[in-house]
Amino acid sequence: MKRRLFLFASAASLSLLATWALAAEGKWTPRQVLQIDPAWLQQQGLELPPGQLWDEARGTGLLAAAVSITGCSAGFVSPDGLIVTNHHCLFGVVQEHSRPERDLITHGFLARSRPDELPSKTMRVTVPRRFTDVTDRIEAAASGAADPSARTRAITQAQRELVTACEKAPDAGCRVAVFDGGLQYVLIETIELRDVRLVYAPPRAIGEYGGEIDNWMWPRHTGDFAMARAYVSPEGRSAEFAPGNVPYRPEFHFPVARRGVGPGDFVMVLGYPGITYRSLIAEEMAERRDRFFPWREQVFGEWIRAIERTTEGSPDAQILVAADLKTIQNRYKNAQGQVAGFRRGRIVERQQEADDRLAAWAADRPEAAEVLAARDGLRDVLKERLETWERDFLLSLVPVGLTTVPGSAGTFSKMLYHAVTIAHLARERAKPDAQRTAGFTERDLPRLRDRAAREEKSTYLPADREVFALYLERLLALPETQRVPSVEQFFGKYRGAPVALRAHLEEVYKASALTSASTREGLLEAPEAALRERQDPLLAFGFAFDDDLTALRARLAAWEGRISVHRPTWRRAVIAHAGEPVAPDANSTLRVSFAHVKGYSPRDAVTYGPQTTLAGALEKHTGEEPFDLPERVRASAADAPGSRWADERLGDVPIGFLADGDTTGGNSGSPVVNGRGELVGLNFDRVWENVANDFGYNPAIARNVSVDIRYMLWMLDDIEGADALLKELGVR
Amino acid sequence: MKRRLFLFASAASLSLLATWALAAEGKWTPRQVLQIDPAWLQQQGLELPPGQLWDEARGTGLLAAAVSITGCSAGFVSPDGLIVTNHHCLFGVVQEHSRPERDLITHGFLARSRPDELPSKTMRVTVPRRFTDVTDRIEAAASGAADPSARTRAITQAQRELVTACEKAPDAGCRVAVFDGGLQYVLIETIELRDVRLVYAPPRAIGEYGGEIDNWMWPRHTGDFAMARAYVSPEGRSAEFAPGNVPYRPEFHFPVARRGVGPGDFVMVLGYPGITYRSLIAEEMAERRDRFFPWREQVFGEWIRAIERTTEGSPDAQILVAADLKTIQNRYKNAQGQVAGFRRGRIVERQQEADDRLAAWAADRPEAAEVLAARDGLRDVLKERLETWERDFLLSLVPVGLTTVPGSAGTFSKMLYHAVTIAHLARERAKPDAQRTAGFTERDLPRLRDRAAREEKSTYLPADREVFALYLERLLALPETQRVPSVEQFFGKYRGAPVALRAHLEEVYKASALTSASTREGLLEAPEAALRERQDPLLAFGFAFDDDLTALRARLAAWEGRISVHRPTWRRAVIAHAGEPVAPDANSTLRVSFAHVKGYSPRDAVTYGPQTTLAGALEKHTGEEPFDLPERVRASAADAPGSRWADERLGDVPIGFLADGDTTGGNSGSPVVNGRGELVGLNFDRVWENVANDFGYNPAIARNVSVDIRYMLWMLDDIEGADALLKELGVR
Repeated sequence: MKRRLFLFASAASLSLLATWALAAEGKWTPRQVLQIDPAWLQQQGLELPPGQLWDEARGTGLLAAAVSITGCSAGFVSPDGLIVTNHHCLFGVVQEHSRPERDLITHGFLARSRPDELPSKTMRVTVPRRFTDVTDRIEAAASGAADPSARTRAITQAQRELVTACEKAPDAGCRVAVFDGGLQYVLIETIELRDVRLVYAPPRAIGEYGGEIDNWMWPRHTGDFAMARAYVSPEGRSAEFAPGNVPYRPEFHFPVARRGVGPGDFVMVLGYPGITYRSLIAEEMAERRDRFFPWREQVFGEWIRAIERTTEGSPDAQILVAADLKTIQNRYKNAQGQVAGFRRGRIVERQQEADDRLAAWAADRPEAAEVLAARDGLRDVLKERLETWERDFLLSLVPVGLTTVPGSAGTFSKMLYHAVTIAHLARERAKPDAQRTAGFTERDLPRLRDRAAREEKSTYLPADREVFALYLERLLALPETQRVPSVEQFFGKYRGAPVALRAHLEEVYKASALTSASTREGLLEAPEAALRERQDPLLAFGFAFDDDLTALRARLAAWEGRISVHRPTWRRAVIAHAGEPVAPDANSTLRVSFAHVKGYSPRDAVTYGPQTTLAGALEKHTGEEPFDLPERVRASAADAPGSRWADERLGDVPIGFLADGDTTGGNSGSPVVNGRGELVGLNFDRVWENVANDFGYNPAIARNVSVDIRYMLWMLDDIEGADALLKELGVR
Repeated sequence: MKRRLFLFASAASLSLLATWALAAEGKWTPRQVLQIDPAWLQQQGLELPPGQLWDEARGTGLLAAAVSITGCSAGFVSPDGLIVTNHHCLFGVVQEHSRPERDLITHGFLARSRPDELPSKTMRVTVPRRFTDVTDRIEAAASGAADPSARTRAITQAQRELVTACEKAPDAGCRVAVFDGGLQYVLIETIELRDVRLVYAPPRAIGEYGGEIDNWMWPRHTGDFAMARAYVSPEGRSAEFAPGNVPYRPEFHFPVARRGVGPGDFVMVLGYPGITYRSLIAEEMAERRDRFFPWREQVFGEWIRAIERTTEGSPDAQILVAADLKTIQNRYKNAQGQVAGFRRGRIVERQQEADDRLAAWAADRPEAAEVLAARDGLRDVLKERLETWERDFLLSLVPVGLTTVPGSAGTFSKMLYHAVTIAHLARERAKPDAQRTAGFTERDLPRLRDRAAREEKSTYLPADREVFALYLERLLALPETQRVPSVEQFFGKYRGAPVALRAHLEEVYKASALTSASTREGLLEAPEAALRERQDPLLAFGFAFDDDLTALRARLAAWEGRISVHRPTWRRAVIAHAGEPVAPDANSTLRVSFAHVKGYSPRDAVTYGPQTTLAGALEKHTGEEPFDLPERVRASAADAPGSRWADERLGDVPIGFLADGDTTGGNSGSPVVNGRGELVGLNFDRVWENVANDFGYNPAIARNVSVDIRYMLWMLDDIEGADALLKELGVR
């Protein structure tokens, strides 16, 4: 049990540690909170007893008031299932209900009473119910595997069985989360609430103030907040939308902090950070720095230009691609920030030093051979991966059945995605459910159908075709040793012939039935033979390309099997060497980061203060997007200093604040609470200098960006007059 | 004498004032320094007795160690005529001596011994010798004038007579400077040193580090310093370059401050600020805000795009237009900053309040009628000016014989400039010298010849023609009431016909002899009849256009005559109302600003510290212009913290610093000295937020940017090993 010493063991079994080198580093699991010295937590500013944050015996606590909402984090703020999260996290619902004659995107939305709340087709709220360590079960299943691929299959199989058993409980949604590359496996039981309704969204000019220009930046003046409410059946069961449903009554919720927050104040950032890479060894990080992010920057930059070029002058086309373009731009900017952050933070060099220190430390210990072999093992896998790196990177851009490739992005050629998805699903449905690739089991079908339907409104064929063409050109340009059979077969003759390739693709698109959404939906569950019969050129390529993906999946499974042996060994040594709790990499499970409100210096002679104000938002106002504050907000700004939501020290309504919270993607909408567990804000971004914190925490620049809850309250109070909501929040 | 109470009266005649509302506001004349309470100056940080800065009896003092160097300021730093100023101020000399095989621009230059110093054809150093109040003389001459135009003529005439008499003294260069629009006239006697040699210039990558991107910006890491030496004949007389000349021995020079400068330290910025507009009334400022700067932004923006377009893909053409393009870009960015600054600082609104306060104060006093009539008089002139504003603005862009139009810029069509200059000079040379327009007297001929010769290397005809075409198009688009006869006559038929206009201009350029520099030089002093005979199409237009300029000159003279009556009356009231010294607007005469080293907040949540470091320069280094530090500088940066030029507090070699000095264009190269009169830096810019300080001083954002002299010393010492120079500077 030694290996689980810090991660999930009970607090009582631990000798508590009083000193912390990097206090703010770490996205702690709920149980780790109990392993941290309570005196230290108190000294940081925690006023509640840690046991109130998390009750080991019950497997829940106040932390569980932080929930997951389709890719984002969120928090309950009333006993009646009221939820706050980011505006951008609820944007889909706003869009769903927006009509030209009732433009909720532009004007925002406020439900003046519960019946006015707007249901959503796609929003899901996931509330954690119980965490169970299942490492022994997984390891027992994996131990007899004949080879690395079999090991991966055995682990996957064991996880599925655990999930299936777990989901027999009423309303239960379950998953097995992997920590530290396999050092720990935890079964997480949740309840998924499916009737989620929009309660409040500010005008887009508030919720997205600063837009792409301010994205990843500070100072920030974005009112990135919105509210929803979760409903259940009258019996209290999870249910799809029904008029007779009643508000869900969460066991825990965060009261709103009237006093707000200021420089130096202790805060906790709670939520579901997606993925980080701090457990990689230096060589693996170098792969990210030297290959992964530079390639992303190149490829996404190329796609952005292609989409802009093909939609130029056509507002309708621009609307169709807007959401995708925003996603790619965000990833593109992220890749740039990662590359810059690696350089500035000397992240690989520092990891190399840390790895070497660990190896030296381990050398004198009994487990030396095992530890050094683990490092060599990881290096060997990497070496193999690098041999076909370019091909595998490009293939992974069509992430069909490739859940194990971290951080890859969809191709943004929807047609390619549909072709491969339909082809792969046809093959997987021919297998027993338990043997299918992840994401293609029976329970995944609704999600696949959803996505097919959703994407109808976001496809502009000329842009889609051009992105497809650029993608093929990159595949055709691979060195001979890495060529992709399906691509060679279908498009090999167009190598070096960009015009002919595009003319051919135009024919392919014309001849394919996949460009019609209704046809696609019909094909989604058709068997392979039926699909083949159609002789659809896109589908034909989809099957061939899926063969190549299958080969990649097999390679990935083998590598993964080897990594699942070596990584835990290496990480066990890292934790033993640290001699104190070490937070595992993010994996979309509930975490908490302990932080303080503080500014930073982004560069020579520049200091950023930790708070922004309404006056600062007005300063940025130009009257043009993305700096176009609504007239009613500007008109009220003069009275803002006298508002009860004004910050006394700032003499104005506060908008944003910085803290040294340890966050990443997935922390969008994370409740930020004070030492009494009261809500002071919502996390929505990291600063530019901190983008590479996924690889290492640098206290000098590690800053997360939150919107001050008082800005939301001021909007609700002084602008919207939302009395009922303010009353429900306990501040009227 | 009351009117001169504060400006040039002797200190003894004043009741000294102990309190100052805006301590740092004011570009003080040397004599005003003696009117300021010495105790207050001491409290600010002045350690020298004020009498050492300026000796009223002798009309000189330490301030006179600040000299003027062709449009810039500079300072003597050794008894042997060694001068420091900005790199960009000596760039012309560097360029003059740069050859492909000896690229001083790129690599910089250091004279290891005096014979190595490089003479310049164009550099002139002007050292102030004596200041004499001549207001009575001017006013006596002006008092009998029959009308405003005659008044302007009489004032000009009286000034010329004073200058002529003054220049009878050996080596004397003289001018009459006008203060507060005519409240004061001062005869300034100087000595002009004509043998000025380049001693040191850093590589361009240091001297222009940050380039146009960082221009007007902070934080700044530009090593904008260079050194020259002034020489005189062995007899000590001003002389053109001769090998036998000897270093000039200035009476005053600034020793270098070894200790450097830090936050809060007192500094004085000495130099020759060009022009400011704080004495304008609110309505006149509104003209600048609403018309002048927006038009400049438009016109210059158009020209920039035209020049970039016509030179695209041609590196040779780009080199030809580089200097002009830089000048226009600088003015373009300045215009943007002015417009933004007017808005942010509510400058017009605040001036309106100040004007109204003054009017209310004056209403109860005996001079009420006179003061209010002065304001009305200024308003009336403005009203008339606005009637033909667009035409006059455009005509003023060809500033031939239009010295009274403040802040106008050359047309950047050299051909247009040459045509009008040659035409106008032919006419002026037919008149007695004393009756000619300013800039066209006998003594101006060398300067005109110089410019004609200098511009040879900066003309690219296709760009020149396109700028000419754009200019004509604007003139042709004027409303009918403002049409320009010469333009209508020569180009009227091309209104609305851009292609035909350009084709025609191409013919005109082909047919004109003015495109040849040698021909131009020959024509520069030809009489009108001879020029007319050539039937040169450009010259023909030049004569016709000059007629229109003559009409404008007459209107300007009449307005000026009226303003010269009203402005002094109004300003006299402003000064009386203030009850303390009021610094007059800048007019290219010697001034001093008392300041402190300090940062500022440019916007919400952002604070700029007052100093930058070498580490910050490295942070910006990308390896590409304008952020491409020389290898030897980067290599030495690691040792910089241990250098004797490192700042102890910063732990690094300091590069730039901010102070709340009151500066404007012309202050480039201004010596910045500490309370002991020791050199701590060289001013070279203002910050972006402070561009509109020409109209009003805002202590919150009024910051001038200087390069720390220790950066220059570090370069000389640790990089160049310039022992002789360091010894001469007294630091070796």
